[in-house]
Amino acid sequence: MTHQAGIPLGVRFKLLSDTPHDSAAQVCGDVVVGDYRDLEVLRAFAATCDVVTFDHEHVPTEHLRALREEGVAVLPGPEALRFAQDKGAMRARLAEIAVPCPRNRLVADPSDVAAFAAEVGGWPVVLKTTRGGYDGKGVWVVHDERQAAEPFQAGVPVLAEEKVPFRRELAANVVRSPHGQAVAYPVVESVQVDGVCSEVIAPAPGLSATLAAEAQSVALRIAGELDVVGHLAVELFETTDGRILVNELAMRPHNSGHWTIDGAVTSQFENHLRAVLDLPLGDPRPRARWTVMANVLGGDYPEMYPAFLHCMARDPGLRIHMYGKDVKPGRKVGHVTVSGDDLDDVRERARHAAGYLRGTITE
Amino acid sequence: MTHQAGIPLGVRFKLLSDTPHDSAAQVCGDVVVGDYRDLEVLRAFAATCDVVTFDHEHVPTEHLRALREEGVAVLPGPEALRFAQDKGAMRARLAEIAVPCPRNRLVADPSDVAAFAAEVGGWPVVLKTTRGGYDGKGVWVVHDERQAAEPFQAGVPVLAEEKVPFRRELAANVVRSPHGQAVAYPVVESVQVDGVCSEVIAPAPGLSATLAAEAQSVALRIAGELDVVGHLAVELFETTDGRILVNELAMRPHNSGHWTIDGAVTSQFENHLRAVLDLPLGDPRPRARWTVMANVLGGDYPEMYPAFLHCMARDPGLRIHMYGKDVKPGRKVGHVTVSGDDLDDVRERARHAAGYLRGTITE
Repeated sequence: MTHQAGIPLGVRFKLLSDTPHDSAAQVCGDVVVGDYRDLEVLRAFAATCDVVTFDHEHVPTEHLRALREEGVAVLPGPEALRFAQDKGAMRARLAEIAVPCPRNRLVADPSDVAAFAAEVGGWPVVLKTTRGGYDGKGVWVVHDERQAAEPFQAGVPVLAEEKVPFRRELAANVVRSPHGQAVAYPVVESVQVDGVCSEVIAPAPGLSATLAAEAQSVALRIAGELDVVGHLAVELFETTDGRILVNELAMRPHNSGHWTIDGAVTSQFENHLRAVLDLPLGDPRPRARWTVMANVLGGDYPEMYPAFLHCMARDPGLRIHMYGKDVKPGRKVGHVTVSGDDLDDVRERARHAAGYLRGTITE
Repeated sequence: MTHQAGIPLGVRFKLLSDTPHDSAAQVCGDVVVGDYRDLEVLRAFAATCDVVTFDHEHVPTEHLRALREEGVAVLPGPEALRFAQDKGAMRARLAEIAVPCPRNRLVADPSDVAAFAAEVGGWPVVLKTTRGGYDGKGVWVVHDERQAAEPFQAGVPVLAEEKVPFRRELAANVVRSPHGQAVAYPVVESVQVDGVCSEVIAPAPGLSATLAAEAQSVALRIAGELDVVGHLAVELFETTDGRILVNELAMRPHNSGHWTIDGAVTSQFENHLRAVLDLPLGDPRPRARWTVMANVLGGDYPEMYPAFLHCMARDPGLRIHMYGKDVKPGRKVGHVTVSGDDLDDVRERARHAAGYLRGTITE
């Protein structure tokens, strides 16, 4: 999707891909297959680029530092990116700049988790490996000391967080350029099922103007303080007592911003590119009163064409985005977007199409 | 732009390109370089595709017929496409189905042109080569028999047409699928400068509902009668006495439909693809009250980046589409689109950006 956004701007993309079959490798004209964990591979690749950016945060920080020291324009830079790579570093930094977060601390072993539980008012407690988590992986909700053992098995530092009673999850997406120009998208509601985002509603329905402004302001402050360049997604809890607390950060185009392709004047992908190229940022405003994005998860259809026939015929306004991934159960293989004035109608249409493409709805 | 539209639908594109440097070849992952006039090249290429379509109408009709006879899905088919390739055949066919056109006939030589001029009320007369014209090339407005000699020099049959007094040029864009499903975009005004489209306004300002419906109806009828599959652009004159007459046909995504990328729910490119794949068509309705597309012509800037800085900073809502072509004076190298509620504002912004990118406006 970033490649698509680059085409009209004349941005020639070069892709470093794990395999020749990755989604991006299927549509990008200039692909190098190689391992992003290998500094020599990164160095040779970067030598042919003006600017290097990412679609995930797993490139080792030390390699990015090495490239930066050799004069490569790596954006966002390793100093910023490590706060998206390491949840322990992120929590420590957000505490320094007084951004509201769930209570948290690094824990050494299960008995230390029990001590943390006592400090925050009891079980359950959320445990996260500080690195490598994704889509609910690397996150556990544990109810006693015995359950708290599993997260330590990976040998990665573990962060404990209070389990916040929340009304719903929100995301504040902002984009910041090296100049320090920044734009904020409307705050969205992100509906999670089994730790995976199923639906994003833009803007978040019924969110008070005060909380919306606070969420945008927190995201812009994080972007500025951490010197983020490009798209920053700040995932938030709206607590049952009406506060917002930061849950996670992502420094790249993010699932909670996919609605912007069809629903905003300038998509997160284009604004991410503009930022890493230090071009002026585009208008982040919504193009419709409501836009709902629903993720298509892998299901019963290895072949999408018959499902397209039904979905397109049922809803000519439906926007379909498939990623060219092999269909595996539960994997995000695409998304659909619907915009309109009537939220119930828009949600029903997006959910129906996502369910039909997955195979859980058959009529 | 068709490749871009195919990505989200999971349509894997294979491109037959004249050279490795063509616009599409720069962004498409799977490119075969070859000559579209060579049947063997076409045959080998087509053997690797499910469906073959075009972005220009110059592939020889006889080659398309040969492919079709060999079982290749060529869409639009040669029977339809020849009416976009040969203006003489087009005029004859439109006469058969009683579509209003300027008076016209094939002419044999300059003295025959003089006879035609006398029949239609005198000079000037418009002469067109029946094949191979583009962007004002292959079209002459001649004022006497001496001037009428030039068009015959190419050795291609020449069509004479009355020079219609017209208020403005319009375009009716429709898309039709093999099923016979069709959608009609709003009728647009196309502003021409020196035979080249400079600006398209969607919808055509002040067009009566009657004429708009008539224009859409004419375009849908042509698509049906000629068995067009895919996008059909019908370029029209709105005459000073309030009629519409068909000027040209194009059976592919067309410059008069570029506004649909940003300005309609479903772009002409996506609907063209849906049609050639026999998928249900998408909603053609506009997403804003007014959308203006202005072509960027080649000018003083071989390098666009400095111009981007100015244009993007001045107008965050501006949508820029560059084609990756070498910049040559007067060549269409991109377009810009602006949408909004105030037509004067939208036009000014689109014109300013197109002029600045060309280098004719410098502040």
